[in-house]
Amino acid sequence: MSSSTLTPIDHALRVQRVAEQVGDRALLVTDLADLRWLTGFVTSHGWAVVRSGELFVGTDGRYGDKAVAETHGTGATVIVEQERAALDGQMIRTLDGARVLIDTDVSDHQLRVGLAARGIDVFDASPIRTMRRVKDAAEIERIERAAAIADTALAEVEPMLGSGVTELEVRAELEYRMVLHGADDRSYPTIVAAGPEHGARPHHGAARRVISEGDTIIIDVGALVDGYHSDMTRSWVVGTASPEQREVYELVRSSQAAGLAVVSSGASSKAVDRACRDVFEDAGRLDEYIHGTGHGVGLDIHELPFHNQSSDVTLEAGMVVTVEPGLYRGGFGGFRIEDLVLVTDSVNGTGHRVLTHSPKRELN
Amino acid sequence: MSSSTLTPIDHALRVQRVAEQVGDRALLVTDLADLRWLTGFVTSHGWAVVRSGELFVGTDGRYGDKAVAETHGTGATVIVEQERAALDGQMIRTLDGARVLIDTDVSDHQLRVGLAARGIDVFDASPIRTMRRVKDAAEIERIERAAAIADTALAEVEPMLGSGVTELEVRAELEYRMVLHGADDRSYPTIVAAGPEHGARPHHGAARRVISEGDTIIIDVGALVDGYHSDMTRSWVVGTASPEQREVYELVRSSQAAGLAVVSSGASSKAVDRACRDVFEDAGRLDEYIHGTGHGVGLDIHELPFHNQSSDVTLEAGMVVTVEPGLYRGGFGGFRIEDLVLVTDSVNGTGHRVLTHSPKRELN
Repeated sequence: MSSSTLTPIDHALRVQRVAEQVGDRALLVTDLADLRWLTGFVTSHGWAVVRSGELFVGTDGRYGDKAVAETHGTGATVIVEQERAALDGQMIRTLDGARVLIDTDVSDHQLRVGLAARGIDVFDASPIRTMRRVKDAAEIERIERAAAIADTALAEVEPMLGSGVTELEVRAELEYRMVLHGADDRSYPTIVAAGPEHGARPHHGAARRVISEGDTIIIDVGALVDGYHSDMTRSWVVGTASPEQREVYELVRSSQAAGLAVVSSGASSKAVDRACRDVFEDAGRLDEYIHGTGHGVGLDIHELPFHNQSSDVTLEAGMVVTVEPGLYRGGFGGFRIEDLVLVTDSVNGTGHRVLTHSPKRELN
Repeated sequence: MSSSTLTPIDHALRVQRVAEQVGDRALLVTDLADLRWLTGFVTSHGWAVVRSGELFVGTDGRYGDKAVAETHGTGATVIVEQERAALDGQMIRTLDGARVLIDTDVSDHQLRVGLAARGIDVFDASPIRTMRRVKDAAEIERIERAAAIADTALAEVEPMLGSGVTELEVRAELEYRMVLHGADDRSYPTIVAAGPEHGARPHHGAARRVISEGDTIIIDVGALVDGYHSDMTRSWVVGTASPEQREVYELVRSSQAAGLAVVSSGASSKAVDRACRDVFEDAGRLDEYIHGTGHGVGLDIHELPFHNQSSDVTLEAGMVVTVEPGLYRGGFGGFRIEDLVLVTDSVNGTGHRVLTHSPKRELN
C-alpha cells in the first residue's frame, strides 16, 4: 500500500475556493497543517499568502526544492530565503497595503506585533479552519486506510496482552506493525495504560510496567497515511473481570453507543456529548468522566469540531469525528472506547459510517 | 534499564534557585518543557507560578492526580479546575498585583492579551530558559543513556542498509529497537533519507522508497529517556562510493571534526559554526550547506544555544550541544554527520566529551 496508490488531492481547487472567499483582502496562512491542506507543501517552516487570486509560498533553504515540487499544479510562486529576517521581509511585501485575514488560533505574538509595526491590520477570520472540517473523498480515503492499518496492527498485538509484556513493549509492537502494514507513521504516541494507576489517567502514555492479571487496559492507537490521522481506543481486563470492572466497562460501551447513535448530519456536537454524559449521569458516575467526548480528525489529530458541553457546531456530512467516552478512578483504573466515524446524511436512521472496526469485546 | 535506576532530579532545588532569581516579582511558566524542568510535572496542559518563594501548579482534571504525584517534594500547591475559564481565573488570581516575568518565546497572543486586560504587566525575562542550558549530573545521565541506546539500535540496523529495505522500514526497526533497549520513545521522528532526491533534503523524513545501490544515506536518530533527548546523524553510501561521493563525504567529516575541535567551555557558539563553514567555503561548496551547525539538547530536542552566524552565546561547561554540518544537492543526495557532546572545561586541549559513539566509517 504505497501512497502512490492514493487518489491525488486537488490543491489547485482548494486554492481557487479559498481565493474566492478571500476576495479583495489577503489571507496569511502560518499554521503548518493549514499550509499543507491548501498547497500540499509539507514543512516545518513556511507560510502562504493568497491575494488577488495568486498564491505565494515562503520557506527557507532546507525546503526550497520540496516546496516547488509539492506545490506543483497550484500555480504557486515559491519564495526561498536562507535568513529568517529576509523571509519575514518577503512576507510583509506580499501583504503590503492589504486587509489581512489570519486564523484566530494563530497565537504567534511576535508575528502579530511585527505586522502591526508595519501598519498591517489583521482580522481573525481565516476561512481555512472551517473548510477543513468537511473532508473530500481523497481525504476520507486516507483516513479510512489509516484506520484499517491500526485495526490490523491491533488484531495482531491483542494476543500479547497479559502475557508478561510491558505497556511500552505493546506500544512498540503496535507502532512497528502499523508502518509495516503501510502507515507512514503512528498518528500520535500510542497510549497503553494498564492497571489501577496508569489506567486512571486518560492521557498516560506507556511505561515500563508489566500488564498484569486483573488490570484494566486502555489502548488508544492510530496510524498516519499521507498526513491524515486515524484515532481509536479499545479497553480490556486481563483475565476474569470483577463485577465492578464489568459494570463500569458496560457503562462505557453503552455511553459510546449512545453517543454514536446521535452522530448524523444536522445533529449538534453538543448533543453527542450530552448523550454520552447522560448514561454516566444516570449511573451516578459523571464525576469519573474527566475529558471531552470527541473531536474532528484530519491533518491534525485534534481539529474542529469538538464535542463538549459548550460546542455550538452542527455536524455536516463529510466531517470525520471521534466518539470516545471513558470512566477513570485512581485505585480502580479506567476504560475508554473510541470510534472514528464519517458523518453522513441520515439513511435508514443512521447518519454516519464507522471507520474503525476493531471489535469491542465482551469482558471475560 | 528502567527509569527507576536513574538518579532522581532535584526539583525542589530548582524551585529554590528560580525563586531566588524571581525575588519580589512573580514568574509565570507556560512552556511545558519549562514546567517539567521546574516542577517534574509532565503534562499537555498546565502552568506554574513562582511568587514569594511559593510554587503554584495549575492543570485540568485529566492531570490532577498526576500533578500531585509528580510535584511531590517541591511543596507545590496544585490547583485543578475542570473548565479552562476557571483555571485561567486561578492563574490570574495567583498573579494579581505582581510584576510578572514570562519567557520571550512564549508567543501565546491570547494569554498576553488576557493578562493585559486584567492590568497585569508582563516582562520578557524568565530565567528558566537560560538556566536550562547548563545540565546537572542527573540530566547528563539521562542524555548519555539515550545516546547509548541509539548507538545500540543503529549498530543492529546498519547491516540492513542496501539489502532491499525501504527508508520507512529502517526507521521502524530503529524506533522499535530503541524502545526494546530501554528508551521511553524515539527522540524525534527518525530521518532516513537516501538517494539523489531525498538525501538532498536535510529534513526529509522517511518514505516507502527502497534504499538502492549508489545511494547516499543520511540517518538522523535519537532516543528519549525520562524526557531527555539524544540526537545523532551518520551517513553512508550503498555499495562502492563514486569519487565525488567520497570527496563530499570526506569534506563533511572534516567539517564536523573542525567544529567539534572548537567546542569547549569559553568558546563561542559562533566559532563552532565558523569552523564548520570554513571547511566548506575553502572547498567552494558553502552554498550546499543550508542549515545551522547545531543546537542545545535536553528536555527539548532543539533548545538553547544555537550555533549559527548570528549567535552571541559563549559555551559553558554542562551545556549539551550537537555539531552537525552537512552538504546537500538535488540529483546528488547528501551527507550529514552529527555528534552530541557535553561541553567541559578544557583538559589536555579537549573541551568536550562526545556522547554519541557510533562509528563514522570510511566509505567503501
